[in-house]
Amino acid sequence: MSYEFYYWPGIQGRGEFVRLALELAGADYIDVARCDGGMAAMQAIVDGDHAGALPYAPPFLKSEDLVIAHVANILLFLGDRHDLAPKNEAGRLWAHQLQLTVTDFVSEVHDTHHPIANVLYYEDQKDEAARKAENFLDIRVPKYLSYFERAVARNQTNSGYVIGSAPTYPDLSLFQLMAGLRYAFPNAMARIEPDFPRLSAMHDLVAALPHVAAYLESDRRIPFNEHGVFRHYPELDG
Amino acid sequence: MSYEFYYWPGIQGRGEFVRLALELAGADYIDVARCDGGMAAMQAIVDGDHAGALPYAPPFLKSEDLVIAHVANILLFLGDRHDLAPKNEAGRLWAHQLQLTVTDFVSEVHDTHHPIANVLYYEDQKDEAARKAENFLDIRVPKYLSYFERAVARNQTNSGYVIGSAPTYPDLSLFQLMAGLRYAFPNAMARIEPDFPRLSAMHDLVAALPHVAAYLESDRRIPFNEHGVFRHYPELDG
Repeated sequence: MSYEFYYWPGIQGRGEFVRLALELAGADYIDVARCDGGMAAMQAIVDGDHAGALPYAPPFLKSEDLVIAHVANILLFLGDRHDLAPKNEAGRLWAHQLQLTVTDFVSEVHDTHHPIANVLYYEDQKDEAARKAENFLDIRVPKYLSYFERAVARNQTNSGYVIGSAPTYPDLSLFQLMAGLRYAFPNAMARIEPDFPRLSAMHDLVAALPHVAAYLESDRRIPFNEHGVFRHYPELDG
Repeated sequence: MSYEFYYWPGIQGRGEFVRLALELAGADYIDVARCDGGMAAMQAIVDGDHAGALPYAPPFLKSEDLVIAHVANILLFLGDRHDLAPKNEAGRLWAHQLQLTVTDFVSEVHDTHHPIANVLYYEDQKDEAARKAENFLDIRVPKYLSYFERAVARNQTNSGYVIGSAPTYPDLSLFQLMAGLRYAFPNAMARIEPDFPRLSAMHDLVAALPHVAAYLESDRRIPFNEHGVFRHYPELDG
Protein backbone atom coordinates (compact mmCIF):
# COMPACT_ATOMS: atom_id res chain seq x y z
CA MET A 1 0.00 0.00 0.00
CA SER A 2 1.42 3.35 -1.03
CA TYR A 3 0.32 6.71 0.39
CA GLU A 4 0.59 10.27 -0.81
CA PHE A 5 1.18 12.62 2.10
CA TYR A 6 0.58 16.35 1.66
CA TYR A 7 2.01 19.04 3.89
CA TRP A 8 4.09 22.21 3.73
CA PRO A 9 7.54 21.16 2.62
CA GLY A 10 9.78 23.38 4.76
CA ILE A 11 8.51 22.63 8.26
CA GLN A 12 7.78 19.85 10.69
CA GLY A 13 4.57 21.57 11.80
CA ARG A 14 1.44 19.57 12.36
CA GLY A 15 2.44 17.23 9.56
CA GLU A 16 5.29 15.82 11.62
CA PHE A 17 2.90 13.82 13.79
CA VAL A 18 1.81 12.00 10.65
CA ARG A 19 5.32 11.61 9.23
CA LEU A 20 6.38 9.90 12.46
CA ALA A 21 3.53 7.41 12.21
CA LEU A 22 4.27 6.64 8.56
CA GLU A 23 7.92 6.13 9.45
CA LEU A 24 7.30 3.89 12.46
CA ALA A 25 4.92 1.82 10.36
CA GLY A 26 7.54 1.49 7.65
CA ALA A 27 4.84 2.63 5.24
CA ASP A 28 5.54 3.34 1.62
CA TYR A 29 4.74 7.04 1.15
CA ILE A 30 5.60 10.08 -0.91
CA ASP A 31 5.88 13.48 0.80
CA VAL A 32 4.28 15.08 -2.22
CA ALA A 33 4.86 18.79 -1.62
CA ARG A 34 8.59 18.13 -1.28
CA CYS A 35 8.68 16.78 -4.84
CA ASP A 36 8.60 18.70 -8.14
CA GLY A 37 5.12 20.01 -8.83
CA GLY A 38 3.96 18.91 -5.40
CA MET A 39 2.79 22.29 -4.17
CA ALA A 40 0.47 22.64 -7.15
CA ALA A 41 -0.85 19.13 -6.59
CA MET A 42 -1.53 19.98 -2.94
CA GLN A 43 -3.33 23.20 -3.84
CA ALA A 44 -5.50 21.38 -6.37
CA ILE A 45 -6.84 19.11 -3.63
CA VAL A 46 -7.45 22.03 -1.26
CA ASP A 47 -9.36 23.62 -4.16
CA GLY A 48 -11.52 20.53 -4.41
CA ASP A 49 -10.35 19.23 -7.78
CA HIS A 50 -10.94 15.62 -6.76
CA ALA A 51 -13.82 13.36 -5.86
CA GLY A 52 -13.06 12.59 -2.22
CA ALA A 53 -13.42 14.47 1.06
CA LEU A 54 -12.51 18.17 0.97
CA PRO A 55 -9.63 19.15 3.27
CA TYR A 56 -9.80 22.46 5.09
CA ALA A 57 -5.99 22.65 5.07
CA PRO A 58 -2.88 20.45 4.98
CA PRO A 59 -1.87 17.98 6.28
CA PHE A 60 -3.85 15.36 4.46
CA LEU A 61 -3.21 11.82 3.28
CA LYS A 62 -4.30 10.19 0.08
CA SER A 63 -4.80 6.44 0.12
CA GLU A 64 -6.23 5.24 -3.17
CA ASP A 65 -9.61 7.01 -3.37
CA LEU A 66 -9.58 8.27 0.21
CA VAL A 67 -8.50 11.79 1.10
CA ILE A 68 -8.14 12.11 4.88
CA ALA A 69 -7.43 15.43 6.58
CA HIS A 70 -6.62 16.44 10.17
CA VAL A 71 -3.74 14.90 12.05
CA ALA A 72 -5.91 13.02 14.53
CA ASN A 73 -8.12 11.62 11.78
CA ILE A 74 -5.13 10.47 9.73
CA LEU A 75 -3.66 8.80 12.81
CA LEU A 76 -6.97 7.10 13.56
CA PHE A 77 -6.82 5.65 10.05
CA LEU A 78 -3.12 4.71 10.13
CA GLY A 79 -3.44 3.33 13.65
CA ASP A 80 -5.94 0.73 12.47
CA ARG A 81 -4.08 -0.16 9.30
CA HIS A 82 -0.58 -0.44 10.74
CA ASP A 83 -1.08 -1.71 14.28
CA LEU A 84 -0.24 1.67 15.78
CA ALA A 85 -3.28 1.57 18.06
CA PRO A 86 -5.14 -1.04 20.08
CA LYS A 87 -7.68 -3.12 18.20
CA ASN A 88 -10.40 -3.10 20.86
CA GLU A 89 -12.93 -0.26 21.07
CA ALA A 90 -11.86 1.04 24.50
CA GLY A 91 -8.21 1.18 23.47
CA ARG A 92 -8.93 2.79 20.10
CA LEU A 93 -10.99 5.51 21.76
CA TRP A 94 -8.38 6.04 24.45
CA ALA A 95 -5.62 6.47 21.87
CA HIS A 96 -7.75 8.92 19.93
CA GLN A 97 -8.69 10.84 23.05
CA LEU A 98 -5.03 11.28 23.92
CA GLN A 99 -4.34 12.48 20.38
CA LEU A 100 -7.13 15.05 20.57
CA THR A 101 -5.56 16.44 23.74
CA VAL A 102 -2.28 16.66 21.83
CA THR A 103 -4.16 18.57 19.11
CA ASP A 104 -5.37 21.12 21.65
CA PHE A 105 -1.91 21.46 23.15
CA VAL A 106 -0.31 22.00 19.74
CA SER A 107 -2.82 24.73 18.99
CA GLU A 108 -1.79 26.49 22.20
CA VAL A 109 1.88 26.11 21.28
CA HIS A 110 1.17 27.80 17.96
CA ASP A 111 -0.69 30.60 19.69
CA THR A 112 2.30 31.48 21.89
CA HIS A 113 3.82 33.16 18.84
CA HIS A 114 0.58 33.97 17.00
CA PRO A 115 -1.99 34.83 19.66
CA ILE A 116 -3.86 37.40 17.56
CA ALA A 117 -3.85 36.27 13.94
CA ASN A 118 -1.97 33.78 11.78
CA VAL A 119 -2.01 36.29 8.90
CA LEU A 120 0.07 38.77 10.91
CA TYR A 121 3.81 38.49 11.45
CA TYR A 122 5.07 37.51 14.87
CA GLU A 123 6.64 40.96 15.07
CA ASP A 124 3.17 42.51 14.81
CA GLN A 125 1.89 40.60 17.85
CA LYS A 126 5.01 40.39 20.02
CA ASP A 127 3.52 42.06 23.07
CA GLU A 128 0.53 39.76 23.11
CA ALA A 129 2.80 36.79 22.42
CA ALA A 130 4.91 37.62 25.47
CA ARG A 131 1.83 37.65 27.70
CA LYS A 132 0.49 34.48 26.13
CA ALA A 133 3.79 32.59 26.41
CA GLU A 134 4.22 33.52 30.05
CA ASN A 135 0.86 32.01 30.93
CA PHE A 136 1.54 29.06 28.67
CA LEU A 137 4.81 28.17 30.40
CA ASP A 138 3.59 28.88 33.93
CA ILE A 139 0.24 27.15 33.76
CA ARG A 140 -0.58 25.35 30.54
CA VAL A 141 2.59 23.33 29.99
CA PRO A 142 2.63 21.94 33.55
CA LYS A 143 -1.09 21.18 33.32
CA TYR A 144 -0.83 19.28 30.04
CA LEU A 145 2.39 17.47 30.93
CA SER A 146 0.98 16.51 34.30
CA TYR A 147 -2.02 15.00 32.56
CA PHE A 148 0.12 13.01 30.11
CA GLU A 149 2.46 11.90 32.92
CA ARG A 150 -0.54 10.55 34.83
CA ALA A 151 -1.79 8.83 31.69
CA VAL A 152 1.54 6.99 31.29
CA ALA A 153 1.53 6.12 35.00
CA ARG A 154 -1.91 4.52 34.60
CA ASN A 155 -0.62 2.05 32.01
CA GLN A 156 -0.55 -1.11 34.08
CA THR A 157 1.99 -2.80 31.83
CA ASN A 158 4.69 -0.35 32.97
CA SER A 159 6.07 -0.44 29.45
CA GLY A 160 6.95 3.22 29.50
CA TYR A 161 4.43 3.78 26.71
CA VAL A 162 1.01 5.30 27.28
CA ILE A 163 -1.07 2.29 26.16
CA GLY A 164 -0.17 -1.38 26.49
CA SER A 165 3.25 -2.82 25.94
CA ALA A 166 4.05 -1.49 22.45
CA PRO A 167 4.30 1.99 20.95
CA THR A 168 1.08 3.47 19.61
CA TYR A 169 0.55 6.71 17.72
CA PRO A 170 0.01 8.83 20.86
CA ASP A 171 3.51 7.86 22.00
CA LEU A 172 4.92 9.27 18.79
CA SER A 173 2.99 12.49 19.30
CA LEU A 174 4.15 12.81 22.91
CA PHE A 175 7.74 12.30 21.76
CA GLN A 176 7.27 15.11 19.24
CA LEU A 177 5.70 17.39 21.86
CA MET A 178 8.63 16.91 24.21
CA ALA A 179 11.17 17.41 21.42
CA GLY A 180 9.37 20.53 20.24
CA LEU A 181 9.02 22.06 23.69
CA ARG A 182 12.72 21.48 24.34
CA TYR A 183 13.57 23.22 21.08
CA ALA A 184 11.23 26.18 21.54
CA PHE A 185 11.62 26.75 25.28
CA PRO A 186 14.98 25.31 26.43
CA ASN A 187 15.22 27.45 29.57
CA ALA A 188 11.69 26.83 30.69
CA MET A 189 11.87 23.12 29.91
CA ALA A 190 15.10 22.73 31.87
CA ARG A 191 13.05 23.89 34.84
CA ILE A 192 9.77 22.10 34.03
CA GLU A 193 10.78 18.75 32.59
CA PRO A 194 12.32 17.18 35.74
CA ASP A 195 8.79 17.03 37.19
CA PHE A 196 7.77 14.66 34.41
CA PRO A 197 10.26 11.79 34.37
CA ARG A 198 7.95 9.36 32.59
CA LEU A 199 7.60 11.72 29.63
CA SER A 200 11.37 12.27 29.48
CA ALA A 201 11.91 8.52 29.50
CA MET A 202 9.28 7.97 26.86
CA HIS A 203 10.90 10.56 24.60
CA ASP A 204 14.09 8.52 24.70
CA LEU A 205 12.26 5.22 24.28
CA VAL A 206 10.51 6.45 21.13
CA ALA A 207 13.65 8.12 19.73
CA ALA A 208 15.44 4.77 20.04
CA LEU A 209 12.88 2.74 18.08
CA PRO A 210 14.85 1.61 15.02
CA HIS A 211 12.49 3.08 12.40
CA VAL A 212 12.19 6.33 14.31
CA ALA A 213 15.93 6.59 14.96
CA ALA A 214 16.65 6.04 11.26
CA TYR A 215 14.10 8.69 10.34
CA LEU A 216 15.50 11.25 12.76
CA GLU A 217 18.96 10.76 11.24
CA SER A 218 17.68 11.06 7.69
CA ASP A 219 17.12 14.18 5.61
CA ARG A 220 13.43 13.34 5.63
CA ARG A 221 13.36 14.85 9.14
CA ILE A 222 13.25 18.61 8.56
CA PRO A 223 15.05 20.47 11.37
CA PHE A 224 12.96 22.61 13.71
CA ASN A 225 12.85 26.20 12.50
CA GLU A 226 11.04 29.49 13.03
CA HIS A 227 8.35 28.78 10.44
CA GLY A 228 6.79 25.77 12.15
CA VAL A 229 4.66 25.28 15.24
CA PHE A 230 7.56 25.03 17.70
CA ARG A 231 9.62 28.22 17.33
CA HIS A 232 12.54 29.31 19.41
CA TYR A 233 12.16 32.98 20.23
CA PRO A 234 14.44 33.56 23.25
CA GLU A 235 12.26 36.43 24.49
CA LEU A 236 9.33 34.01 24.93
CA ASP A 237 11.37 31.41 26.83
CA GLY A 238 10.69 32.78 30.30
CA MET B 1 -28.48 1.66 26.56
CA SER B 2 -28.15 4.46 29.11
CA TYR B 3 -25.37 7.06 29.15
CA GLU B 4 -23.95 9.35 31.77
CA PHE B 5 -22.92 12.65 30.24
CA TYR B 6 -20.59 14.96 32.17
CA TYR B 7 -20.18 18.67 31.50
CA TRP B 8 -20.39 22.03 33.24
CA PRO B 9 -24.01 22.50 34.22
CA GLY B 10 -24.52 26.22 33.53
CA ILE B 11 -23.39 26.51 29.93
CA GLN B 12 -23.86 25.09 26.48
CA GLY B 13 -20.13 25.26 25.83
CA ARG B 14 -18.38 22.41 24.07
CA GLY B 15 -20.75 19.95 25.70
CA GLU B 16 -23.65 21.21 23.61
CA PHE B 17 -22.34 19.44 20.51
CA VAL B 18 -22.72 16.17 22.41
CA ARG B 19 -26.09 17.03 23.93
CA LEU B 20 -27.46 17.69 20.45
CA ALA B 21 -26.30 14.26 19.26
CA LEU B 22 -27.77 12.50 22.29
CA GLU B 23 -31.06 14.31 21.72
CA LEU B 24 -31.28 13.63 17.98
CA ALA B 25 -30.54 9.97 18.69
CA GLY B 26 -33.29 9.87 21.30
CA ALA B 27 -30.68 8.34 23.61
CA ASP B 28 -31.38 7.66 27.26
CA TYR B 29 -28.89 9.85 29.15
CA ILE B 30 -28.33 11.69 32.40
CA ASP B 31 -26.68 15.12 32.34
CA VAL B 32 -24.86 14.23 35.54
CA ALA B 33 -23.42 17.56 36.67
CA ARG B 34 -26.90 19.08 36.52
CA CYS B 35 -28.09 16.59 39.17
CA ASP B 36 -27.47 16.57 42.93
CA GLY B 37 -23.92 15.50 43.69
CA GLY B 38 -23.06 15.56 40.01
CA MET B 39 -20.22 18.05 40.20
CA ALA B 40 -18.40 15.87 42.73
CA ALA B 41 -18.97 12.80 40.56
CA MET B 42 -17.52 14.66 37.57
CA GLN B 43 -14.47 15.79 39.53
CA ALA B 44 -13.81 12.25 40.74
CA ILE B 45 -13.49 11.05 37.16
CA VAL B 46 -11.21 13.96 36.22
CA ASP B 47 -9.13 12.95 39.26
CA GLY B 48 -8.88 9.41 37.90
CA ASP B 49 -10.96 7.58 40.51
CA HIS B 50 -12.13 5.04 37.98
CA ALA B 51 -10.70 2.27 35.84
CA GLY B 52 -11.29 3.65 32.34
CA ALA B 53 -9.63 6.26 30.18
CA LEU B 54 -8.56 9.46 31.95
CA PRO B 55 -10.25 12.63 30.67
CA TYR B 56 -8.22 15.81 30.44
CA ALA B 57 -11.38 17.86 31.01
CA PRO B 58 -15.15 17.74 30.52
CA PRO B 59 -17.09 16.95 28.41
CA PHE B 60 -16.95 13.18 28.68
CA LEU B 61 -19.42 10.36 28.30
CA LYS B 62 -19.70 7.21 30.34
CA SER B 63 -21.17 4.16 28.65
CA GLU B 64 -20.93 1.12 30.90
CA ASP B 65 -17.17 0.68 31.41
CA LEU B 66 -16.13 3.18 28.76
CA VAL B 67 -15.18 6.74 29.60
CA ILE B 68 -14.85 8.77 26.39
CA ALA B 69 -13.59 12.35 26.38
CA HIS B 70 -13.33 15.06 23.70
CA VAL B 71 -16.34 16.15 21.72
CA ALA B 72 -15.12 14.72 18.42
CA ASN B 73 -14.27 11.38 20.02
CA ILE B 74 -17.65 11.13 21.72
CA LEU B 75 -19.37 11.94 18.43
CA LEU B 76 -17.30 9.32 16.63
CA PHE B 77 -18.59 6.80 19.17
CA LEU B 78 -22.22 7.98 19.15
CA GLY B 79 -22.22 8.31 15.36
CA ASP B 80 -21.54 4.60 15.00
CA ARG B 81 -23.97 3.51 17.67
CA HIS B 82 -26.91 5.67 16.70
CA ASP B 83 -26.70 5.99 12.92
CA LEU B 84 -25.52 9.59 13.14
CA ALA B 85 -22.69 8.96 10.69
CA PRO B 86 -22.19 6.93 7.52
CA LYS B 87 -21.29 3.28 8.00
CA ASN B 88 -18.62 3.07 5.28
CA GLU B 89 -15.01 4.03 5.99
CA ALA B 90 -14.85 7.00 3.63
CA GLY B 91 -18.02 8.49 5.06
CA ARG B 92 -17.02 7.91 8.68
CA LEU B 93 -13.66 9.62 8.11
CA TRP B 94 -15.30 12.49 6.24
CA ALA B 95 -17.76 13.10 9.08
CA HIS B 96 -14.96 13.02 11.60
CA GLN B 97 -12.79 15.33 9.52
CA LEU B 98 -15.59 17.88 9.37
CA GLN B 99 -16.01 17.60 13.13
CA LEU B 100 -12.31 18.22 13.72
CA THR B 101 -12.57 21.40 11.67
CA VAL B 102 -15.50 22.41 13.88
CA THR B 103 -13.27 21.73 16.89
CA ASP B 104 -10.64 24.12 15.57
CA PHE B 105 -13.22 26.75 14.80
CA VAL B 106 -14.76 26.50 18.28
CA SER B 107 -11.33 26.97 19.82
CA GLU B 108 -10.92 30.18 17.83
CA VAL B 109 -14.37 31.36 18.92
CA HIS B 110 -13.33 30.85 22.55
CA ASP B 111 -10.12 32.75 21.96
CA THR B 112 -11.96 35.85 20.74
CA HIS B 113 -12.79 36.58 24.37
CA HIS B 114 -9.83 34.76 25.95
CA PRO B 115 -6.86 35.27 23.64
CA ILE B 116 -4.24 35.34 26.39
CA ALA B 117 -5.27 32.95 29.15
CA ASN B 118 -8.40 31.12 30.26
CA VAL B 119 -7.46 31.75 33.90
CA LEU B 120 -7.73 35.51 33.40
CA TYR B 121 -11.01 37.40 33.26
CA TYR B 122 -12.16 38.78 29.94
CA GLU B 123 -11.74 42.24 31.43
CA ASP B 124 -8.04 41.53 31.90
CA GLN B 125 -7.52 40.76 28.19
CA LYS B 126 -10.03 43.10 26.55
CA ASP B 127 -7.54 44.92 24.35
CA GLU B 128 -6.13 41.70 22.99
CA ALA B 129 -9.66 40.33 22.59
CA ALA B 130 -10.66 43.31 20.48
CA ARG B 131 -7.74 42.73 18.12
CA LYS B 132 -8.39 39.00 18.00
CA ALA B 133 -12.12 39.37 17.36
CA GLU B 134 -11.57 41.86 14.54
CA ASN B 135 -9.34 39.40 12.70
CA PHE B 136 -11.69 36.55 13.54
CA LEU B 137 -14.73 38.27 12.00
CA ASP B 138 -12.88 39.72 9.01
CA ILE B 139 -10.91 36.65 8.02
CA ARG B 140 -11.52 33.51 10.02
CA VAL B 141 -15.32 33.34 10.04
CA PRO B 142 -15.61 33.85 6.26
CA LYS B 143 -12.83 31.31 5.68
CA TYR B 144 -14.42 28.61 7.83
CA LEU B 145 -17.97 29.25 6.66
CA SER B 146 -16.82 29.27 3.06
CA TYR B 147 -15.24 25.87 3.62
CA PHE B 148 -18.37 24.41 5.19
CA GLU B 149 -20.58 25.96 2.50
CA ARG B 150 -18.44 24.26 -0.16
CA ALA B 151 -18.65 21.00 1.76
CA VAL B 152 -22.46 21.12 1.75
CA ALA B 153 -22.44 22.04 -1.94
CA ARG B 154 -20.34 18.94 -2.71
CA ASN B 155 -23.01 16.64 -1.29
CA GLN B 156 -24.40 15.18 -4.49
CA THR B 157 -27.71 14.23 -2.88
CA ASN B 158 -28.64 17.92 -2.53
CA SER B 159 -30.32 17.04 0.76
CA GLY B 160 -29.20 20.25 2.39
CA TYR B 161 -27.12 18.19 4.82
CA VAL B 162 -23.38 17.86 4.53
CA ILE B 163 -23.24 14.09 3.99
CA GLY B 164 -25.80 11.93 2.25
CA SER B 165 -29.54 12.30 2.55
CA ALA B 166 -29.98 12.21 6.33
CA PRO B 167 -28.62 14.33 9.20
CA THR B 168 -25.28 13.24 10.63
CA TYR B 169 -23.44 14.60 13.65
CA PRO B 170 -21.50 17.26 11.68
CA ASP B 171 -24.84 18.79 10.67
CA LEU B 172 -25.74 19.18 14.33
CA SER B 173 -22.42 20.85 15.00
CA LEU B 174 -22.79 23.22 12.06
CA PHE B 175 -26.26 24.14 13.31
CA GLN B 176 -24.78 24.93 16.71
CA LEU B 177 -21.96 26.98 15.15
CA MET B 178 -24.41 29.10 13.21
CA ALA B 179 -26.67 29.57 16.23
CA GLY B 180 -23.71 30.49 18.41
CA LEU B 181 -22.21 32.93 15.93
CA ARG B 182 -25.59 34.65 15.53
CA TYR B 183 -25.85 34.98 19.31
CA ALA B 184 -22.30 36.23 19.88
CA PHE B 185 -21.89 38.45 16.82
CA PRO B 186 -25.33 39.54 15.59
CA ASN B 187 -24.09 42.60 13.72
CA ALA B 188 -21.24 40.85 12.02
CA MET B 189 -23.35 37.83 11.15
CA ALA B 190 -26.06 40.00 9.62
CA ARG B 191 -23.35 41.11 7.21
CA ILE B 192 -21.57 37.77 6.76
CA GLU B 193 -24.30 35.14 6.74
CA PRO B 194 -26.02 36.09 3.46
CA ASP B 195 -22.90 34.84 1.66
CA PHE B 196 -23.56 31.34 3.00
CA PRO B 197 -27.14 30.43 2.11
CA ARG B 198 -26.59 26.67 2.39
CA LEU B 199 -25.48 27.01 6.00
CA SER B 200 -28.45 29.26 6.83
CA ALA B 201 -30.79 26.72 5.28
CA MET B 202 -29.12 23.84 7.09
CA HIS B 203 -29.50 25.64 10.40
CA ASP B 204 -33.24 25.75 9.84
CA LEU B 205 -33.40 22.18 8.58
CA VAL B 206 -31.66 20.88 11.72
CA ALA B 207 -33.67 23.09 14.06
CA ALA B 208 -36.86 21.62 12.59
CA LEU B 209 -35.93 17.96 13.14
CA PRO B 210 -38.56 16.80 15.64
CA HIS B 211 -36.12 15.60 18.32
CA VAL B 212 -33.99 18.72 17.98
CA ALA B 213 -36.99 21.05 17.97
CA ALA B 214 -38.33 19.42 21.12
CA TYR B 215 -34.94 19.74 22.78
CA LEU B 216 -34.54 23.41 21.87
CA GLU B 217 -37.94 24.13 23.44
CA SER B 218 -37.12 22.20 26.61
CA ASP B 219 -35.33 23.35 29.73
CA ARG B 220 -32.58 20.88 28.90
CA ARG B 221 -31.35 23.49 26.39
CA ILE B 222 -29.44 25.99 28.50
CA PRO B 223 -29.69 29.50 27.02
CA PHE B 224 -26.54 31.06 25.56
CA ASN B 225 -24.79 33.18 28.17
CA GLU B 226 -21.51 34.97 28.89
CA HIS B 227 -19.89 31.96 30.56
CA GLY B 228 -19.87 29.65 27.56
CA VAL B 229 -17.91 29.55 24.32
CA PHE B 230 -20.22 31.86 22.38
CA ARG B 231 -20.41 35.13 24.31
CA HIS B 232 -22.12 38.32 23.27
CA TYR B 233 -19.84 41.23 24.07
CA PRO B 234 -21.11 44.10 21.89
CA GLU B 235 -17.67 45.69 21.74
CA LEU B 236 -16.33 42.59 19.95
CA ASP B 237 -19.15 42.48 17.39
CA GLY B 238 -17.44 44.67 14.77
